[in-house]
Amino acid sequence: MKSYTIAEINAVINGVVLGNTSNEINAPEQLEKATIHNISFIGNRKYAKLWSSSKASVAVIDKKIALEPGENRALIQVESADLAMAQILGFFNPGMPILDEEIHPSAVVHISAKLGANVHLGANCYIGKNVTIGDGTTIYPNVTVMDDSTIGMGCTIWSGTVIRERTIIGHQCIFHTNVSIGSDGFGFRPSPDGRGLVKIPQIGNVVIGNGVEIGANSCVDRGKFSSTIIGDGTKIDNLVQIGHNSILGRSCIMAGHSGLAGSVTLGDGVIIGGSASIKDHTTLHSGVTVGAGSGVMGDVAAGKTVLGYPACDSRDMLKQWVALRKLGKGA
Amino acid sequence: MKSYTIAEINAVINGVVLGNTSNEINAPEQLEKATIHNISFIGNRKYAKLWSSSKASVAVIDKKIALEPGENRALIQVESADLAMAQILGFFNPGMPILDEEIHPSAVVHISAKLGANVHLGANCYIGKNVTIGDGTTIYPNVTVMDDSTIGMGCTIWSGTVIRERTIIGHQCIFHTNVSIGSDGFGFRPSPDGRGLVKIPQIGNVVIGNGVEIGANSCVDRGKFSSTIIGDGTKIDNLVQIGHNSILGRSCIMAGHSGLAGSVTLGDGVIIGGSASIKDHTTLHSGVTVGAGSGVMGDVAAGKTVLGYPACDSRDMLKQWVALRKLGKGA
Amino acid sequence: MKSYTIAEINAVINGVVLGNTSNEINAPEQLEKATIHNISFIGNRKYAKLWSSSKASVAVIDKKIALEPGENRALIQVESADLAMAQILGFFNPGMPILDEEIHPSAVVHISAKLGANVHLGANCYIGKNVTIGDGTTIYPNVTVMDDSTIGMGCTIWSGTVIRERTIIGHQCIFHTNVSIGSDGFGFRPSPDGRGLVKIPQIGNVVIGNGVEIGANSCVDRGKFSSTIIGDGTKIDNLVQIGHNSILGRSCIMAGHSGLAGSVTLGDGVIIGGSASIKDHTTLHSGVTVGAGSGVMGDVAAGKTVLGYPACDSRDMLKQWVALRKLGKGA
Repeated sequence: MKSYTIAEINAVINGVVLGNTSNEINAPEQLEKATIHNISFIGNRKYAKLWSSSKASVAVIDKKIALEPGENRALIQVESADLAMAQILGFFNPGMPILDEEIHPSAVVHISAKLGANVHLGANCYIGKNVTIGDGTTIYPNVTVMDDSTIGMGCTIWSGTVIRERTIIGHQCIFHTNVSIGSDGFGFRPSPDGRGLVKIPQIGNVVIGNGVEIGANSCVDRGKFSSTIIGDGTKIDNLVQIGHNSILGRSCIMAGHSGLAGSVTLGDGVIIGGSASIKDHTTLHSGVTVGAGSGVMGDVAAGKTVLGYPACDSRDMLKQWVALRKLGKGA
Repeated sequence: MKSYTIAEINAVINGVVLGNTSNEINAPEQLEKATIHNISFIGNRKYAKLWSSSKASVAVIDKKIALEPGENRALIQVESADLAMAQILGFFNPGMPILDEEIHPSAVVHISAKLGANVHLGANCYIGKNVTIGDGTTIYPNVTVMDDSTIGMGCTIWSGTVIRERTIIGHQCIFHTNVSIGSDGFGFRPSPDGRGLVKIPQIGNVVIGNGVEIGANSCVDRGKFSSTIIGDGTKIDNLVQIGHNSILGRSCIMAGHSGLAGSVTLGDGVIIGGSASIKDHTTLHSGVTVGAGSGVMGDVAAGKTVLGYPACDSRDMLKQWVALRKLGKGA
Repeated sequence: MKSYTIAEINAVINGVVLGNTSNEINAPEQLEKATIHNISFIGNRKYAKLWSSSKASVAVIDKKIALEPGENRALIQVESADLAMAQILGFFNPGMPILDEEIHPSAVVHISAKLGANVHLGANCYIGKNVTIGDGTTIYPNVTVMDDSTIGMGCTIWSGTVIRERTIIGHQCIFHTNVSIGSDGFGFRPSPDGRGLVKIPQIGNVVIGNGVEIGANSCVDRGKFSSTIIGDGTKIDNLVQIGHNSILGRSCIMAGHSGLAGSVTLGDGVIIGGSASIKDHTTLHSGVTVGAGSGVMGDVAAGKTVLGYPACDSRDMLKQWVALRKLGKGA
């Protein structure tokens, strides 16, 4: 573990140093758990109270918060402690596990697959026919990539993930562990005798842009026909469901356990809170925010914030909640 | 990619052709994205408006919708565009990835396992002791099937799926990627000192009928004792949880993120909407429909539709929602 | 399958035998499905009615329930049929699948990994650099354990599970199939041009105590920095999401589909019902119970029970539900 002086750290975040310390710093840590070799963060007054009892030698602090560093301790004043934290985390980042071999001998790679320069492929991976993998992409052990899929440059695919046939993935994407891309959409029709269900073939695919991140155990279904599409820079958390033929714009955010039923359209910059669900065939235009736990049953105009089950304008829903609470007290 | 004339396509769906086109068709596509080599679908008037600006050379159209084909373009009138679409998707289906070898040399198959004729087993699969796999079943790479399990004929098991010991699976089933079958049910009792939890052994199994489809990253827990049972023809979407000792009838549908707590009983043809949850030890009789997002806390009589959290008759819940909206406006 | 006399079974549960039977017992089974070689359980009066028509030769029965055994049949009276059931399930437990080899030849184990005595490692597992695995731990096929992780003694890791780098796991833990431990937390900040999102490095880890059980397809994210922590004896069901930097106390229970957003703190013995979600940066103190389907938006004091969306004191929420139902009837 490397150590750094306060001057070396401040060279990264360019703050104003109050006080000083000779203790070298080897990791960020929360104030309560810090040792003298840790740096911590004070982004609001709640945390400021913990500084005097913390053992951290250094903290990054929002400049609007007044605090004394104390003896052999230092505070680094910055515009935004949160932004500086992101920079410092990068500075102390131990990096991803390094695979010793480019292609592990136990990986099974079809002879027709095309691997770019500096591709790393972990143990027990399977790469199917005509798969293309771009330069600098790392695929960790036990990943499956099926026939005719394309993965761009600089991607990271973590273990346990499965990418079904004919998927197209852009550059600089990150897929976390046990992700399912391109499974069949959920489509059935009544059988001719009316007593059962017949599978509707799901012959489309999934197309994912650049800079997309998909969380652990999340699922993106292939199109019934045509494609399920995820736009550039969209970030998806764990255990999220994206139904067939949904189309997500650029830089959307979907938090854990949220889901889109089939053929949902999201504009750009749409934010969907945890455990929220969106009905099939609805459109959420650019800039929409959906509160956590909501159930959205219809289209939402650009820039609106909706909340609740069934979801409506968030201010209206908050009023409903207040009214219901009053009503309950009268009961 | 093969191409077909309009006559070859109409031989499959038996419609009435209006207009004509010499353009050959190689894929279905949505009206907005279609090229001259695509066929599209017009199942309602909303889509009819897109026909004139679409580049598609052919569309299948409900016969109740009046529309002119235009020059070198054709419309195929049918009773139901949706049903015809399912047939056309089958016609253009590129099929599943084909594994070159019956048993990939990297698959680990216990010597006591019994594999039927024309079984395909992908790279890095594990097949445990006394496992039986029926004729014509395909198991894609990185699947695990544990001891004493039985898989019927004509099944497809996609990559990343794990089938725990003593599971019994019928014929023509499809398990998508990263499915978990037969994990321990969630059962604990207070420890003798009252300060902790002791695991209750989960010694039952999972029994799955014929024609069952289970979505990506879904889970079916084994019985505490006896079996968790899924009836013939039942279809389960992604990220669904089925608790121990639940019993599902025939041709049920469970949409994404829905869940059954332990010992739930579903009759035949029960439909459970996305993200809906069913309390443990409840029974939903045949033909029940549960609306998306609902939380069902008690038994539901045959044929009823319930909705909301807590769920009640859907018409009553819609009235509650209307009343609450009014109340919010007065707040 | 071994068989046991009623005397051998009663030696385990120490009850009072009414009646007698010469039939040997080879498995527990539900009353409706039992044969003469089964033992069943009668924990409440609802089940007592099924006894006369059941074929089970023996049932364990709560001593407060009066019932006649009948001819060549026996009842074993105990204080708690549920507790006796747990003991009997242990007695009939067929045990976990046994791996024939300690380290399967297809497992890929980095030369720097340290494996304890009697460790079993299944086919196609990957064990990274500097991983330590304690005595008596079993890891089933197709598991991935990444660099610098530590797994304690007597653990069971089921197939498909992925443990990311620098995870620390105690003794006697059970991780079910397709679990994701240590994936990146979900953290982004606006890009400098305000039009996109930049990943915040997630450089912390996951620390899991002793006796923890984690259900199939559940996810525990690594800390942004510092650790996500799960206390001793905590039990987590399937498809559960635990966000980065959450801290769970001892002997907590989280049911299926529940989730903690980032930086949630749970005291000891907190119980979270199925599909319930907890907002980020909230604290649920020791002994809190959260009802199924709830959305908790703020801190909850020790010992309280909360319910609903948005969650409040469960008695108040029940009143709100009653009031809303009345209101709906008036609409």
